[in-house]
Amino acid sequence: AVRLRVREALGAREPADAVRVQGWVRSVRSQKEVLFLHINDGSSLESLQVVADPSLENRDLTFGSAVEVQGKLVKSPHKMQNMELQAETIHVVGPCDIWSFPLKMKERHPLEYVRQFPHLRCRSNTLGALLRIRSEATAGIHSFFQDNGYVHIHTPIITSNDCEGAGELFQIETSSEAKESAEKSHFFNVPAFLTVSGQLHLEVMAGAFTHVFTFGPTFRAENSQSRRHLAEFYMVEAELSFTESLQDIMQVMEDLFKTVTSTVLSKCPHDVELFQKYVAPAQKSDITHKLFSSSCRISYSEAVEILKQAPQTFTFKPEWGCDLQTEHEKYLVKHCGEVPVFVVNYPYDLKPFYMRDNEDGPQHTVAAVDLIVPGVGELCGGSLREERLPFLESRLQRLGLTDAYQWYLDLRKFGSVPHGGFGMGFERYLQYILGVDNIKDVIPFPRFSHSCVL
Amino acid sequence: AVRLRVREALGAREPADAVRVQGWVRSVRSQKEVLFLHINDGSSLESLQVVADPSLENRDLTFGSAVEVQGKLVKSPHKMQNMELQAETIHVVGPCDIWSFPLKMKERHPLEYVRQFPHLRCRSNTLGALLRIRSEATAGIHSFFQDNGYVHIHTPIITSNDCEGAGELFQIETSSEAKESAEKSHFFNVPAFLTVSGQLHLEVMAGAFTHVFTFGPTFRAENSQSRRHLAEFYMVEAELSFTESLQDIMQVMEDLFKTVTSTVLSKCPHDVELFQKYVAPAQKSDITHKLFSSSCRISYSEAVEILKQAPQTFTFKPEWGCDLQTEHEKYLVKHCGEVPVFVVNYPYDLKPFYMRDNEDGPQHTVAAVDLIVPGVGELCGGSLREERLPFLESRLQRLGLTDAYQWYLDLRKFGSVPHGGFGMGFERYLQYILGVDNIKDVIPFPRFSHSCVL
Repeated sequence: AVRLRVREALGAREPADAVRVQGWVRSVRSQKEVLFLHINDGSSLESLQVVADPSLENRDLTFGSAVEVQGKLVKSPHKMQNMELQAETIHVVGPCDIWSFPLKMKERHPLEYVRQFPHLRCRSNTLGALLRIRSEATAGIHSFFQDNGYVHIHTPIITSNDCEGAGELFQIETSSEAKESAEKSHFFNVPAFLTVSGQLHLEVMAGAFTHVFTFGPTFRAENSQSRRHLAEFYMVEAELSFTESLQDIMQVMEDLFKTVTSTVLSKCPHDVELFQKYVAPAQKSDITHKLFSSSCRISYSEAVEILKQAPQTFTFKPEWGCDLQTEHEKYLVKHCGEVPVFVVNYPYDLKPFYMRDNEDGPQHTVAAVDLIVPGVGELCGGSLREERLPFLESRLQRLGLTDAYQWYLDLRKFGSVPHGGFGMGFERYLQYILGVDNIKDVIPFPRFSHSCVL
Repeated sequence: AVRLRVREALGAREPADAVRVQGWVRSVRSQKEVLFLHINDGSSLESLQVVADPSLENRDLTFGSAVEVQGKLVKSPHKMQNMELQAETIHVVGPCDIWSFPLKMKERHPLEYVRQFPHLRCRSNTLGALLRIRSEATAGIHSFFQDNGYVHIHTPIITSNDCEGAGELFQIETSSEAKESAEKSHFFNVPAFLTVSGQLHLEVMAGAFTHVFTFGPTFRAENSQSRRHLAEFYMVEAELSFTESLQDIMQVMEDLFKTVTSTVLSKCPHDVELFQKYVAPAQKSDITHKLFSSSCRISYSEAVEILKQAPQTFTFKPEWGCDLQTEHEKYLVKHCGEVPVFVVNYPYDLKPFYMRDNEDGPQHTVAAVDLIVPGVGELCGGSLREERLPFLESRLQRLGLTDAYQWYLDLRKFGSVPHGGFGMGFERYLQYILGVDNIKDVIPFPRFSHSCVL
């Protein structure tokens, strides 16, 4: 018998005599004259209907059990499905203790409920759909950059850079060291941390390749329980050489977003539909409306003016020179008509040392851009990098970082070029396109303060 | 003027009047009547020849400087290249201080030399070629699994599992904790470590998707300075459900290897050639001979017999029940005729708790497989997993791990299926196909004991 995956069986053009399908039982319905099963193997959201003689029923054939069914693949008489399987044999490969199994047949468990079972929630429809979408989006990101001539770089996870200012760091030690004293000796001779961004390492590569990208895990040790923050999350980052305008960077952000989202829509239409129907039904607009059909671009200074003139009061009073808070981002998005908003040219003192001085006043603004989207807030952040040696030298000097960043200064001594790049939070991207409220529901194994299960 | 990458200019079919090429100068040759430059932008190993009037020469136009050249793309009169650029203007975007620049024009720097300059070595021909190959191999791995219906899973980097026995672990703390006392409190409430493998998390997913894979960083805190070990390295891991035979696992290893290697060969022929010519010229066989044109399969017990009958003496005496050492692996590969060797069915006590008991005697062997290849040693390791609840329960009990692995036992209570998988070391794969002796030369930023530069 030919082994078929559920997706293949469902999509088959022709009936077939001897086929074999393996998977997990999603429903059992026993009638007097016929036994109906639905089998799912993760290859699609839809399950395959199995029709069997009631004599094939058995005690272990329950929701959640693993089965192998052999029989004939035939055209289904029902409108809702193309093919069904007429069982000749049903073998229960692994039974399921349904009394202790936390998932129940035909129940739509809330995301908060299945979150309690990180080792089992992938068997629910919603997480299954999410993981297929995540997988296709991952492939889409690699293809987008590959097709545009970018070289993929594995930037390091462990780094000795500790002063980028992107937030609290995780420090690493060998476990035996940790048991004695953290200060005593270091595996790497120097203190070592988990990366907060691959940018500086991508900049190294941007001195040899004009287009590079990375897509990997990044870390923040922030004690936050927010629905938008994780201790371990994924970031897509790109760096472009010979780039003199923020517009170029914004264009790549937009192209990336559009291409990957189109891929997801064409590869997983049913999975996406599930989110639109059951997870974010309140969102009036469907996903295609998020494809940057329109977006808005304002400067940071304009943003502050808009906030100052807002008819509402904010917890954090808007003031030039201060960070935009979540409440401010929300207002700006609303003000612009619930579309993605690019905010450009931030105060010099608000941003890290590597951002390029706009020279619109003495250390007034830098060529930075944040992309803020409805419902999620900051999705991307990017900037032009300071490629001019004297500017960079004096800034590092003032920060007392000259010694630590000799290697970074070297990049400006040997064939320096105007360059820039950005990072996009992958989980926030998924939250945005799918309308998922909590970031813990768009990553297979969420890590956050007080929680590292499995 | 149309902006072209070097690769595009070199591959152009037709001459073009107004083009613009940006990149870094790889050579300057000034003759009385003509100035020759070679420009590289990382899009290919080959550089673009620029022909200019000597009047365009300037003091900053040196090896390593960044330039923008505008002119006409014309058919080259030379056999070795298709197109060349007749310069109308040459603009030095960023000069290069050649006296302190560690790379020199037209020198073939040894890998050990450029390794001293982790922020600049990507500008050498060899590392440039390596990084392009690494990028294509990465894309090839994603495509292979994607095309075969595998779901990609981001398995976590931070994990609370500390007892898989795959070697010394890195432990993580928030940096402020580390400063006080490592024991005091944990960010995650429990001790947390850097992952040594995504396998157990893939097994979670293999309960919902019949085919899953991951490709990401893994870590070992081993104090090794070997040419085959890193503290941070990349692993491709796959897990297959409804799989009852090691042969299935070995077949996927082989298919993966062949497909990715073919991709690399067709996408980067010149880059691969560079390694064959200059890095591993001693290797008589070219890369295509490594494509599993033949391989060998022996059991662990046979391997020990072969070693016992070897006419040479080993530092570690071969003995049933002991691990195969590097010297043993080398001998086995030689014995089999310098081809890849699959060794199957290892002693029960030698392998981790999750491997499947072959029941060929009381706890005698498990269904494990290692793939050993010439010059590199272990490239892949895999096994069938113990899917039978009673077997797993009693083994975990004996190891005192029952409490820690309740969640793992759960996977066997709810629709358990025969399954198995494997991991392939990505850096070792690159070492093998390219003949690179030291693993530090096949990863962008190597991390090993006493070294975490940048």
